Amino acid sequence: MGITDQLVKFRTAEVPEEAAAMTRLSLFDWAACGIAGADAAEFAAFRRAQMIEDGPAHVFGGEALGAAAAALLNGTLSHALDYDDTHFAHIGHPSVAVLPCVMALAETLAIPLTDAIDAATIGVEASILTGVWLGRAHYQIGYHQTATAGAFGATLAAARLLDLDKHQTRHALGLCASMASGVKAQFGTMAKPLNAGLAARTGVEAALWAQAGITAAADGLDGPSGFGPTHHGEAAEIKLPRKDWQISTISHKYHACCHGLHAMLEALAAADIAPDRIAGIRIRTHPRWMSVCNIAAPKTGLEVKFSYAHTAAMTLLSHGTSAISNFSDEVARDPQICALRDRIEVVEDEGLSETQAQVTLTLDSGEVRRLRHDLLAPMSLETRSKKLRIKVSALLGDAREQALWEAVTGSDLDAVTACFAGTNSQV
Amino acid sequence: MGITDQLVKFRTAEVPEEAAAMTRLSLFDWAACGIAGADAAEFAAFRRAQMIEDGPAHVFGGEALGAAAAALLNGTLSHALDYDDTHFAHIGHPSVAVLPCVMALAETLAIPLTDAIDAATIGVEASILTGVWLGRAHYQIGYHQTATAGAFGATLAAARLLDLDKHQTRHALGLCASMASGVKAQFGTMAKPLNAGLAARTGVEAALWAQAGITAAADGLDGPSGFGPTHHGEAAEIKLPRKDWQISTISHKYHACCHGLHAMLEALAAADIAPDRIAGIRIRTHPRWMSVCNIAAPKTGLEVKFSYAHTAAMTLLSHGTSAISNFSDEVARDPQICALRDRIEVVEDEGLSETQAQVTLTLDSGEVRRLRHDLLAPMSLETRSKKLRIKVSALLGDAREQALWEAVTGSDLDAVTACFAGTNSQV
Repeated sequence: MGITDQLVKFRTAEVPEEAAAMTRLSLFDWAACGIAGADAAEFAAFRRAQMIEDGPAHVFGGEALGAAAAALLNGTLSHALDYDDTHFAHIGHPSVAVLPCVMALAETLAIPLTDAIDAATIGVEASILTGVWLGRAHYQIGYHQTATAGAFGATLAAARLLDLDKHQTRHALGLCASMASGVKAQFGTMAKPLNAGLAARTGVEAALWAQAGITAAADGLDGPSGFGPTHHGEAAEIKLPRKDWQISTISHKYHACCHGLHAMLEALAAADIAPDRIAGIRIRTHPRWMSVCNIAAPKTGLEVKFSYAHTAAMTLLSHGTSAISNFSDEVARDPQICALRDRIEVVEDEGLSETQAQVTLTLDSGEVRRLRHDLLAPMSLETRSKKLRIKVSALLGDAREQALWEAVTGSDLDAVTACFAGTNSQV
Repeated sequence: MGITDQLVKFRTAEVPEEAAAMTRLSLFDWAACGIAGADAAEFAAFRRAQMIEDGPAHVFGGEALGAAAAALLNGTLSHALDYDDTHFAHIGHPSVAVLPCVMALAETLAIPLTDAIDAATIGVEASILTGVWLGRAHYQIGYHQTATAGAFGATLAAARLLDLDKHQTRHALGLCASMASGVKAQFGTMAKPLNAGLAARTGVEAALWAQAGITAAADGLDGPSGFGPTHHGEAAEIKLPRKDWQISTISHKYHACCHGLHAMLEALAAADIAPDRIAGIRIRTHPRWMSVCNIAAPKTGLEVKFSYAHTAAMTLLSHGTSAISNFSDEVARDPQICALRDRIEVVEDEGLSETQAQVTLTLDSGEVRRLRHDLLAPMSLETRSKKLRIKVSALLGDAREQALWEAVTGSDLDAVTACFAGTNSQV
């Protein structure tokens, strides 16, 4: 069955409990990233420029807009810090495209949180599988899969929320084929988070417009002159739903730095050794990361985010890596961290995958400990919850973390969006 | 110089009088198509769905919205009838992407009509040259050049209206590189006109967002991982401005039917022969059109729009081809038209280009007359005006035509948008 047919059918699929629980965790994480992102000074003027309408859908920072405008703004702000979740097979960030679409539309339509969670789960799973279908060729040539595959996931989630029939859903996906966009040339600019916002808005609009009777190509995604064939898609074989839902292998970021450092940081987190007992440290990582995040002696907080040695020393000396504010110029200059950092060796190892790292600690006793971590290793929902709560506390403070946690694990959607209001500086 | 550098520089170019005069004609034609398009019943629900905000920019049919929403709606409605202008080198419809962007933004900013015309001229010229730069490869693989190249033209026009500096303009074009989209899979669906509306909205938003400080890839159009390289662009060499502005070779549609019939209809218009004096008629056309618009015996008004023989007979029998309402099922069945139609021969001729047609009339006296027309043949502004006024009268009635003509040739932008209100059925 072609991908369009599979997506249309999948929109009404029953959502396994475990998958929905994963979506709640992503909602928690995504909302925290958005609340923190609403403080980003460089987006302040853009934020103000969106305030040309009133509506029912709350945005990060407080105001409420129409669903499309809210999806655009929330998608953008939640990706501003680049601290949101990732799926390696999707080659993208699923939550920032799908969740802003779902939350804005669900709030507008007064849909219960449980149904919104189901729709978001369908949307995230659809976006991951669309990403797999488009494949690495699509990404390599220069498309930003977060935005392109993400838009189709957002559209399918919106189709479920709006209870579109199969014909309308097909038109919504067809409309999305004319609207999904975003190029990697934007990496390193503010247009990268904007791409996520645009994908979220596309989901809202494509579904609403299909509901309003706009017709589009029935095979706009996979037909001739459709999105896949025109956008260097691989048309890889996919199956929806899979037995193991892909959403279960989402990677959340627990450290406010380059993703290339995360496997090493997770490996070290298990060390539990007093730094003065350490005689030698060697970090092994995939060769690709050596040119990405191996600054030997970072001079600024920003450079620290791309330094194996410095973040390893921070971890061993109990400087948290969850809080964005800990990546400061002071931390870059801290004499104790710098002294330990300079004793750390970083080497490439082709035997490791991009998601793996290995740390070898030699203790003063001569004992050698080898710590490994793979970001793709299964992690229980409980462990994820614990780690995410630490992250969100570091981002928002304990009180706001507690309120957001209670809201996302409850049944009242408005309780979640009520947490969007206010900025950190006001708390 | 790369296309981005050329576009950035071109935004402040001086606009030749003749080019601006051409834009006024296109404004007249575009507005008439939009006013007539606002009546399209299938877009009524979509039209209503856009009415979620108030703003200063008038839309076809009457209401006023924010600039982005107005550009989206007006771009869509003005392309609903597919009766708007074309540029063959652009491979697209320039006005429906650029003019809704310019008019919505200019009305919002209270910019005089003369300046809006200049900005639109810059935008149309930029969209044509971007289309040339993307080339036929981009179109053939499946991109809808009206929307893709059109978005860049709209963005540049908006950058001029907003008086963006060169850095902001670069960011606006960079943002457009992440937003420009639209596939040909939509042809034959309502998403085709929507593509034009989306391009117009992209122009408004990309420029406003760049003004609000959003940064984007400085070479988002032509750099690596940019729009051209990812979207099968040919990167053909271009020069902006050319000595002869491309806008001067825009083709307006004077007949409410397939563009493949127009060269033949223009050739016949010069015949001026009583039908009862005609013994034989042979139409020669480019082979590509034989499978597009050569229905021998059309049964419906829609089929008449794709019939050489039927529209030729209509013309010889003085049935107008400008009014959409003349393409009716009654006309398809008219015995006099059908009798003449069945005597007409249509043959393909590889010696003709796609924009050329030849008609051979054999009179009862034995005299043979050969009539030729090429849609690319130069046409004076005066002749264009005359033909467009006939078309717009057929579309809107004489009174509304007169009012619109006076508005577009005047200096008050609000007088133009005042003509957007009301529907034909109300007049």
